[in-house]
Amino acid sequence: MPTTSRILDERAMARALARMASEIVERCQGSDDLMLVGIQRRGVELAQRLAELIQKHEGRAVPLGKLDITLYRDDLQSIGPRPVVGETSLPGDLDGQTVVIVDDVLYTGRTIRAALDELADFGRPRRIFLCVLVDRGGRELPIQADVVGTTVTTTQGDRVDVLVRERDGEDAANLVRA
Amino acid sequence: MPTTSRILDERAMARALARMASEIVERCQGSDDLMLVGIQRRGVELAQRLAELIQKHEGRAVPLGKLDITLYRDDLQSIGPRPVVGETSLPGDLDGQTVVIVDDVLYTGRTIRAALDELADFGRPRRIFLCVLVDRGGRELPIQADVVGTTVTTTQGDRVDVLVRERDGEDAANLVRA
Repeated sequence: MPTTSRILDERAMARALARMASEIVERCQGSDDLMLVGIQRRGVELAQRLAELIQKHEGRAVPLGKLDITLYRDDLQSIGPRPVVGETSLPGDLDGQTVVIVDDVLYTGRTIRAALDELADFGRPRRIFLCVLVDRGGRELPIQADVVGTTVTTTQGDRVDVLVRERDGEDAANLVRA
Repeated sequence: MPTTSRILDERAMARALARMASEIVERCQGSDDLMLVGIQRRGVELAQRLAELIQKHEGRAVPLGKLDITLYRDDLQSIGPRPVVGETSLPGDLDGQTVVIVDDVLYTGRTIRAALDELADFGRPRRIFLCVLVDRGGRELPIQADVVGTTVTTTQGDRVDVLVRERDGEDAANLVRA
């Protein structure tokens, strides 16, 4: 039977997000043209939270975008004939911007490769940072996050589920062991 | 006047390459299907050297490929109407393979993003490692090398030149300060 253990409870997740918001601001100092882009699905809510925190503590409004990477997946040919594609919307021209990609879990890096590929079709940001709530290791591509909420060691059969209030009724990150 | 300082002389470069070859073997243990892919231009010679070292010390022949990323550059539209495109050749099907990308210098990460993009058009490797002789910092994308010869701190106006015997008559890495 699968066992579930908590990686982040509501308070820990709130603390992690607050620290991540500060780190984003620190790293992007001097960039007037900061933009947060959440990866569908839960990266979108996390990006929104981070933007609210930056607004609250820094008094700075940060434009928000969302990215659905389905059509840029490297296994697109094997996921079936009619993939469900969510919305991609970016708040403006990417050229010369500082873009922070926000995702819930970083694992193989394939989602992020796809996101970089998709962003390149929209313009040429000056700098792209990667911000994730949970880094579970297991990279298959040479990709690393710049801002990380928490790190957890996992094996291949494990699953990491991030839950967000807006969508799931609670804030949490769980490790599900098969 | 620009000043040149040596990052690696011939002996230091030989030592770095020998250690990098060992690291590649360690990291790829259990992968029968290892492949080295050098990025044009000097990554190609470095990949060849690493393959020779792995052959010599491990008695293991490693297939070699080369990649020209010009057509995958994110600034392709601004480099002029007739870019000079070198050869791309891969030693076989990439699906399920362990691919080690080899380059001379890692800087913004844009070349590597382009290489990942190009490789995805040739197949879906199980694992892609990144191996560079010199990491000069200054990343603009969330990309990191797995195997690094040496790290040097640079500023934007600096240049890092890697020289290889086959092409330049000597083995060295130089930092040129403007």
